[in-house]
Amino acid sequence: MVPNWIIQRASLTPNRIALRFQDKSWTYQELNEQSLLIAKQLVSLGIMRGDRIALYASSTAELIFMIGGCMHLQCEMVMLNLRLSKTELAYQIEDARVSAILAEDSLVDKLPSSDTRIYAFTDIFASEGKGFSPSSEWNESDTMTIMYTSGTTGFPKGVRQTVGNHLSSATSSLYNTGLLKEEAWLCTVPLFHISGFSMFCKCILHGVELVLYTKFDAKKVADQLVEGSVTRMSVVSVTLARIIEELENRGERASERFQTMLAGGGPVPIDYLERAAELGIEIAQTYGMTETASQTTTLSSEDAMRKIGSAGKPLFFNQISIEGVSKPFEEGEILIRGPHVTPGYIGRFKEKSALQEGWLHSGDIGYLDDEGYLFVVDRRADLIISGGENIYPAEIENALISHPAVREAGVCGVEDEKWGQVPYGFVVTKGNIDEEDLLIYCKEHLAGYKVPKRIFIVKDLPRNGANKLLRRELPKLI
Amino acid sequence: MVPNWIIQRASLTPNRIALRFQDKSWTYQELNEQSLLIAKQLVSLGIMRGDRIALYASSTAELIFMIGGCMHLQCEMVMLNLRLSKTELAYQIEDARVSAILAEDSLVDKLPSSDTRIYAFTDIFASEGKGFSPSSEWNESDTMTIMYTSGTTGFPKGVRQTVGNHLSSATSSLYNTGLLKEEAWLCTVPLFHISGFSMFCKCILHGVELVLYTKFDAKKVADQLVEGSVTRMSVVSVTLARIIEELENRGERASERFQTMLAGGGPVPIDYLERAAELGIEIAQTYGMTETASQTTTLSSEDAMRKIGSAGKPLFFNQISIEGVSKPFEEGEILIRGPHVTPGYIGRFKEKSALQEGWLHSGDIGYLDDEGYLFVVDRRADLIISGGENIYPAEIENALISHPAVREAGVCGVEDEKWGQVPYGFVVTKGNIDEEDLLIYCKEHLAGYKVPKRIFIVKDLPRNGANKLLRRELPKLI
Repeated sequence: MVPNWIIQRASLTPNRIALRFQDKSWTYQELNEQSLLIAKQLVSLGIMRGDRIALYASSTAELIFMIGGCMHLQCEMVMLNLRLSKTELAYQIEDARVSAILAEDSLVDKLPSSDTRIYAFTDIFASEGKGFSPSSEWNESDTMTIMYTSGTTGFPKGVRQTVGNHLSSATSSLYNTGLLKEEAWLCTVPLFHISGFSMFCKCILHGVELVLYTKFDAKKVADQLVEGSVTRMSVVSVTLARIIEELENRGERASERFQTMLAGGGPVPIDYLERAAELGIEIAQTYGMTETASQTTTLSSEDAMRKIGSAGKPLFFNQISIEGVSKPFEEGEILIRGPHVTPGYIGRFKEKSALQEGWLHSGDIGYLDDEGYLFVVDRRADLIISGGENIYPAEIENALISHPAVREAGVCGVEDEKWGQVPYGFVVTKGNIDEEDLLIYCKEHLAGYKVPKRIFIVKDLPRNGANKLLRRELPKLI
Repeated sequence: MVPNWIIQRASLTPNRIALRFQDKSWTYQELNEQSLLIAKQLVSLGIMRGDRIALYASSTAELIFMIGGCMHLQCEMVMLNLRLSKTELAYQIEDARVSAILAEDSLVDKLPSSDTRIYAFTDIFASEGKGFSPSSEWNESDTMTIMYTSGTTGFPKGVRQTVGNHLSSATSSLYNTGLLKEEAWLCTVPLFHISGFSMFCKCILHGVELVLYTKFDAKKVADQLVEGSVTRMSVVSVTLARIIEELENRGERASERFQTMLAGGGPVPIDYLERAAELGIEIAQTYGMTETASQTTTLSSEDAMRKIGSAGKPLFFNQISIEGVSKPFEEGEILIRGPHVTPGYIGRFKEKSALQEGWLHSGDIGYLDDEGYLFVVDRRADLIISGGENIYPAEIENALISHPAVREAGVCGVEDEKWGQVPYGFVVTKGNIDEEDLLIYCKEHLAGYKVPKRIFIVKDLPRNGANKLLRRELPKLI
């Protein structure tokens, strides 16, 4: 059992700022009050304690209060991704068998038709609350959230994150990075993704101010970094690149109050790490996934410059091993163990165990070096096998992105009669460059079999809601 | 299951300083190596994994390695208090049925004769280690330490602290105080007490440098505070007073790097709090006991000046309530709940449950104010009932200590024909003052029935190993 997070936090530090959104702020006491009110309103609409509820909304203060209300009600929250098509939404709603959907007013029309009750936020706020007393304690094994894994082939799986998963993720993260007396965390990643949701959990647990944005905006982020009004944030490579460019263009640096950017969702190109360092931005590369309630490893700041490209070491309560491997530097599937790992799935995959002998099989390929640092080589599903040689797209992408005229790069495998598969490249440019120049550049930097057969200059790369590159979508750009 | 703390810490931050003692230091990798060596040496002497072992030594680097070795061996460590008489030691050794005693060389002769094997540290260091592989994971319900509660009447009880108790205490403390990038904690409290042992646990878990002293020395503490070589420490009122006096005499202040002094073992006089503030020392009053693996509540820094005299609020994972009380400010027994609370006792009290319906009955009297802050009024065992009026010694002690010529004060109840009990005072002075002056001073500051019948000027007050006042011993000074 663990104390109800919101009540405990409001009781311990009622007057600390919990949330800033647009030009408003709320203390932890106000967050608790708003959340309790929502819980009462949901009860009056027929939602019961412990119900499984879908949430379909962009990141706003209103969504935070809805989440708080659902927490008080100990509902299982299915966090629906805003980028899903109606077909994809219908699949998740059906698979999760939710008893209701809480939706932002303007998004109600985007939901597929189904028998499931839909409550627009306005209707919830307008309803008269019923008597409801939240439990003062939560069970750590209760499911708090369900998120469908994005980016895989076949049917998405609804991953459960329990109260204990989120809690241990927050604790591990605290053991790793520490906590200053006054912190404010900038959240520009969606709350429907594990990166955003777990940041909210950590803020409640640690009594930190959450500075919430509906969308990533490089200019606003740069403003806050320069003025020192935030201490940490989460990025992926593409958002990091935009922040770096913005600061470089302005000729400004991050304030000394700013501590760390946690960079997840795949390896960060070395070029970015170096430029960020010039701007006073410390990057901690992390490795995590929906199944691990966010980070499982992080490269600590003291190792950042010595182990560039590594995802670091496990957080204190986590363990990592490489399957079937006995020596450092040997590649294999990354296995993960710890209290942050999901107990399993719901719906269609309910019977599928997430663990084999206590270890989560990540599906990702990596190795540990001779000091135990994890290097994530690639996502297994993206592995390109060409003429018997293994090619990892990230390596080619790193090469492309090191070209001064390239802003973003993606690489995937394409069927080839001779070699089985060959790599194809896709780049977003920021200068005058054509395919031929890029191919020459690649030949200079890569072994022959790794040079893309074609390189396409495109306007945008396909990305999911967390801005993670969707390599599987790249062939559609041909 | 939780990763073996020492191995995990050595693997995550091998090169960080783990321990400073006298003029030497050891990294976390070295701490792990030293501890592993001890484990192997203990195995060669016949100690088995999981054995219950007594430790009888002062706070030195050697004791730290012995503790580390016992941790690797997953032994239950009975931490013997150095101030015990042979009779008291014999009781604890007998009650705990330890399979061996590990003793500092110079202390071997102070042990009572018994059938229990005694190994002097030198003999352990001299023995050739046997092959031994520590477990990579520990079970949270395993007992790590056993400490006999001091200061109670009747038979001392052997309190178990599990791996999970120490862990949750460390985590709660981190949630409460945060952690800077580089910390060093000063330990002048004995490792055989929960205050010292839990500090060592926290250092391993958080990767903090432990600056260890065998004895409290106000001059050395003042040196470290002024030069900023430590960030936190634990004190009780009497040691705090000496530190304050030392700094005041020197006309120096604590460095800005110094964060907080955790003050436990009873309420801190208001006078001390104010003088400490003048010296740049932030005091966080705490409330805890052997049964709660150290702190259970702490007064956070943001409330320090507003709630002087309070022990604060529960740490995040802990809960406090006052028995049989429905309103703020009503006094009653303090009840405690949380993962830091002992599962129970060993030996004679093995069958006695520590908890009643999930709550630990502390035996202490206190109240919660209208904002939920705990005020510990007194230890129930020390309650003086005089003419039907309840008198709490601490109130009288606070009055005495507010006199400029009084350094320390203790009060207890003494049998009285007329009133049942009357309070008697005992003071250590730092100026010219006699009993009559003090009685006049008390009459000015206290209700008539609270004025001590006699006040004795003494050289020292009786204190236990943690420097906690032993009120029960006061009558011997008459």
